[in-house]
Amino acid sequence: MCGIVGYVGMREAYPILIKGLKRLEYRGYDSAGVAIINNNQNLNVYKAKGKVSELEAYISDKDVSGTIGIAHTRWATHGEPCKANAHPHYSSSENIALIHNGIIENYAVLKNRLQEKGYTFKSSTDTEVLVQLIEYIKVSKDLDLLTAVQLALREVIGAYAIAVLDKERPSEIIAARKSSPLVVGIGDNEFFLASDATPIVEYTDKVVYLEDEEIALIRYGEDLKVVNIQNVSVTPEIQTVALNIGQLEKGGYPHFMLKEIFEQPNCIRDCMRGRINVEGTNVVLSAIIDHKEKLLKAKRFIIVACGTSWHAGLIGKHLIESYCRIPVEVEYASEFRYRDPVIDENDVVIAISQSGETADTLAAIDLARRCGAFIYGICNSVGSSIPRSTHTGSYIHVGPEIGVASTKAFTAQIAALYFLNLLLALKMGLVNKYSLKNKIEEFSRIVKNIERIFSILPEMEKIAEKLKDKPNTLFLGRGIHFPVALEGALKMKEVSYIHAEGYPAAEMKHGPIALIDNEMPVVFIALKDEVYHKVISNMQEVKARGGRIIAIATEGDEDIGRHADHVIYLPEVSRAVSPVLSAVPLQLLAYYIAVARGCDVDQPRNLAKSVTVE
Amino acid sequence: MCGIVGYVGMREAYPILIKGLKRLEYRGYDSAGVAIINNNQNLNVYKAKGKVSELEAYISDKDVSGTIGIAHTRWATHGEPCKANAHPHYSSSENIALIHNGIIENYAVLKNRLQEKGYTFKSSTDTEVLVQLIEYIKVSKDLDLLTAVQLALREVIGAYAIAVLDKERPSEIIAARKSSPLVVGIGDNEFFLASDATPIVEYTDKVVYLEDEEIALIRYGEDLKVVNIQNVSVTPEIQTVALNIGQLEKGGYPHFMLKEIFEQPNCIRDCMRGRINVEGTNVVLSAIIDHKEKLLKAKRFIIVACGTSWHAGLIGKHLIESYCRIPVEVEYASEFRYRDPVIDENDVVIAISQSGETADTLAAIDLARRCGAFIYGICNSVGSSIPRSTHTGSYIHVGPEIGVASTKAFTAQIAALYFLNLLLALKMGLVNKYSLKNKIEEFSRIVKNIERIFSILPEMEKIAEKLKDKPNTLFLGRGIHFPVALEGALKMKEVSYIHAEGYPAAEMKHGPIALIDNEMPVVFIALKDEVYHKVISNMQEVKARGGRIIAIATEGDEDIGRHADHVIYLPEVSRAVSPVLSAVPLQLLAYYIAVARGCDVDQPRNLAKSVTVE
Repeated sequence: MCGIVGYVGMREAYPILIKGLKRLEYRGYDSAGVAIINNNQNLNVYKAKGKVSELEAYISDKDVSGTIGIAHTRWATHGEPCKANAHPHYSSSENIALIHNGIIENYAVLKNRLQEKGYTFKSSTDTEVLVQLIEYIKVSKDLDLLTAVQLALREVIGAYAIAVLDKERPSEIIAARKSSPLVVGIGDNEFFLASDATPIVEYTDKVVYLEDEEIALIRYGEDLKVVNIQNVSVTPEIQTVALNIGQLEKGGYPHFMLKEIFEQPNCIRDCMRGRINVEGTNVVLSAIIDHKEKLLKAKRFIIVACGTSWHAGLIGKHLIESYCRIPVEVEYASEFRYRDPVIDENDVVIAISQSGETADTLAAIDLARRCGAFIYGICNSVGSSIPRSTHTGSYIHVGPEIGVASTKAFTAQIAALYFLNLLLALKMGLVNKYSLKNKIEEFSRIVKNIERIFSILPEMEKIAEKLKDKPNTLFLGRGIHFPVALEGALKMKEVSYIHAEGYPAAEMKHGPIALIDNEMPVVFIALKDEVYHKVISNMQEVKARGGRIIAIATEGDEDIGRHADHVIYLPEVSRAVSPVLSAVPLQLLAYYIAVARGCDVDQPRNLAKSVTVE
Repeated sequence: MCGIVGYVGMREAYPILIKGLKRLEYRGYDSAGVAIINNNQNLNVYKAKGKVSELEAYISDKDVSGTIGIAHTRWATHGEPCKANAHPHYSSSENIALIHNGIIENYAVLKNRLQEKGYTFKSSTDTEVLVQLIEYIKVSKDLDLLTAVQLALREVIGAYAIAVLDKERPSEIIAARKSSPLVVGIGDNEFFLASDATPIVEYTDKVVYLEDEEIALIRYGEDLKVVNIQNVSVTPEIQTVALNIGQLEKGGYPHFMLKEIFEQPNCIRDCMRGRINVEGTNVVLSAIIDHKEKLLKAKRFIIVACGTSWHAGLIGKHLIESYCRIPVEVEYASEFRYRDPVIDENDVVIAISQSGETADTLAAIDLARRCGAFIYGICNSVGSSIPRSTHTGSYIHVGPEIGVASTKAFTAQIAALYFLNLLLALKMGLVNKYSLKNKIEEFSRIVKNIERIFSILPEMEKIAEKLKDKPNTLFLGRGIHFPVALEGALKMKEVSYIHAEGYPAAEMKHGPIALIDNEMPVVFIALKDEVYHKVISNMQEVKARGGRIIAIATEGDEDIGRHADHVIYLPEVSRAVSPVLSAVPLQLLAYYIAVARGCDVDQPRNLAKSVTVE
């Protein structure tokens, strides 16, 4: 969740570090800090509560000179967000500074041990314990920094990505990872370090992804050296990243979230381009064709994911069960990993994660693989941990998603599941070539249909204005629309801080209906399909109790106006592809309400984009 | 959801009808009404918005004489709760009055047809359409009432339980059902009619449960006659109900909900008495022993349920998967029935419903049976529709549950699932006799442990006082505690109208954490088990953002006080049986907060106890 940046080279480090922090700010922004060694070999550490801009303001009159430094933006796990708890953390002597992403689970034990030796602590973080432990080992055993870091990390239980500066070694950064990602960028006689490639790509496209328990020795004027915590040398594998800087900028939109909502037609188009043959008659997913045997003999699919990706998984269940007639179970990754699930080599696990770094999903994959299951990953970030730990999979290729509330990744995840499902059904003989072609065409029309929805923006802003002061909202849908309702509620929670909750429409009567009064907006997904009349009945039950109804309806359904206070019309599409379309007005609704409430849409409070801790 | 009562005999009907309505009031209480034919053959109809007590007040100066009548308490589906929409509904001539439970789905078509014939309507209900249709058929074709009812019902699409009075036939009630329950009580030269047996048992224990599309011809001085809508005679099967009146009274408690919370130790004790042999060494569930082959060869269990029963199902999943190692899927009945699920004769479906009348669960059972699955029911109301439509099952035998928010049924459902699971595991050879005995003993200790929890009532009231004005609450738990968190949130929604939501603790970081500020109470189930440390980490993340934490913790865990604002301690028990215990403080929390907020605990707004419409 936290973001790590580092630089060593011949340029001034500070501007590079700050720019990098801003690129990573989506990962967490409770507090931020930098540590830089200047030419007089002073190790200066500056920290501030809040966003990176507050750090910049605080630092404006400070000495930030120096060509080597590390920086951090934090998402609090242990200890409240405040200056004392911000990173970098000094050791007692202030000779060493360290930044850390992850959780040291046995920090309390280690802290007690150090306190018994007379160490005192300025913060309530697990990180400060680590930096003190490194210094204690280094000084008490008279070791070099690398060896001290190795010994310290052998005592640590938990997850970490760290970077360490030692004022006695003014041209060296030591960085290490376990379960939290870390990338080293290799420039021309300079090095970059970051939690992901986004702060690096404007300087170099050559990167090395560290593996678990590997330590990078980054020294100015030398080649990158990698060893593991047992001190065995590893040859670093240099990869080329394809990321363009334009994708990291807002491009004229007021927020990344809005930009990314608008990118969805293009994302879907790109997604189809890679998966459909030129004639538009067949799905070409090499991952499936290469692993046909494993996939076709699956007795069951288990989808593991968190948050928005979990909602995409629920939609995947509907698709796969109805086309392929194979049972699908959708599990929260965090629940799956700890509950000794029933799983074996006849199961195929689909792991979905935008960042490819979600800690719980990674752990679920590990567990499933140990049980013999075949693992298929659906991720966005190329080269991230999940694609590297699955048997096969597909990328959604939507480019960097910077807005903390996921939008374009969600619809592209659905698209990936849709095509995976179609190809499986074809191979199983449950869909014929003719019907496949129709289904591909049906999906391709979605692109134009999303573009048509964008014409309702002024309408959307008006509805947002009316709803912005309501403290609660319910989102209801049935069947394949239920996960879309959950996702609509999640968006609203995330960016507007309104307590929104999704429910299957018919479950409302079993409790949530008690919440309905004339202060409660209820969003219904009421598209024309098999369950339309049932949803209208549920709508009448809400209406009868004074609730204010917003209906997502099918164009031409004029009757619905009798039941709803506001109607948002969508072009008519088949039920299977409708979630890609119906998600969009709900994203826009959350967005405009958040803007109307003055919320920080791209960096909502408390959140972080890629959840790399449990 | 609505409640129906009827009487014909030699006594005054009115007091019997009103008392019956009060017994049924848990089924819905948006409005109420009665129709009585007096000795001058006038058909008087009186109706009022609100609860039965408001009807009584309104009626106090009216003529309520007569020995035949029908009465109704309504839970609005079509049309707002108001006097015009209340039942009974007159026909245009005011010669016929009708009450109705259910939904007429094609009412709009029928209404149009009648309007074209010149009929006008006073209400916006589907019910008025039905009474007008009956009159139209009766008058235009010059038929008797029974034949007119039969013809009308043949045109109806939907669900109904109806009772009809015709002023021309002052000693006859015609009643019919389809998908909504209806019971005829047979006294000594008098008849009672009701949605369930509760209004009947104080007069007679002889009852006839009507089946779908059956019509009862209830005439003073004659035997009960039953025909179907095709006019084929059916021999009514008279059954004896075992229900005692004391169970229907509050017995000194201020509310049924509190009484039922306190009944839980006894319910668990009774539940064990029927299922465990005298030595306490074995589970004796004849339903399982009789159907061993079907159950033991199950490839998968599918649990279908709604609301609180669905939460019990989620706990069942944890139990069955961890003991029997068979995959379990838990489905909302309302979703299952419409989504063409993958299911066949290798699946065993467990249907859970307190009332045994839940419409969606019944429909899910029908669907599953048509697909060849074996159906096991877990219900409370003896002789209700679900036990009659399953292959086998067990009753939870907790006596009538009157409080609309389910409490004792929930813990007894868990107990039923626990013993079902133990016996299956024994038969599968996955639990040995010795370990079985231990697990039975473990469960039996729960009784005393629940009684110990009741000592925390004053503490609970204090916490409730502090939380009562917070508009939102989150309930978090992991693993088997997650469904308990969902149930805690549902109780709070139902009785206190606070928007409470349950989440798996680790999912909080994927969105809901944006809701956390110092106005947000968060209830953590943080018992000492394998995931305890993970839950503490989640707690720290909330604490770091100012949330107010209420922890349900294990006795002796003093450390937890550092993270939580309030701690509720529970005796240490094994994880598998803990939900029965941890549910209780959450029930009490919801109860005391509702009382502190001045809510009507036993009849919360908008709700109805047994959801017999979709």
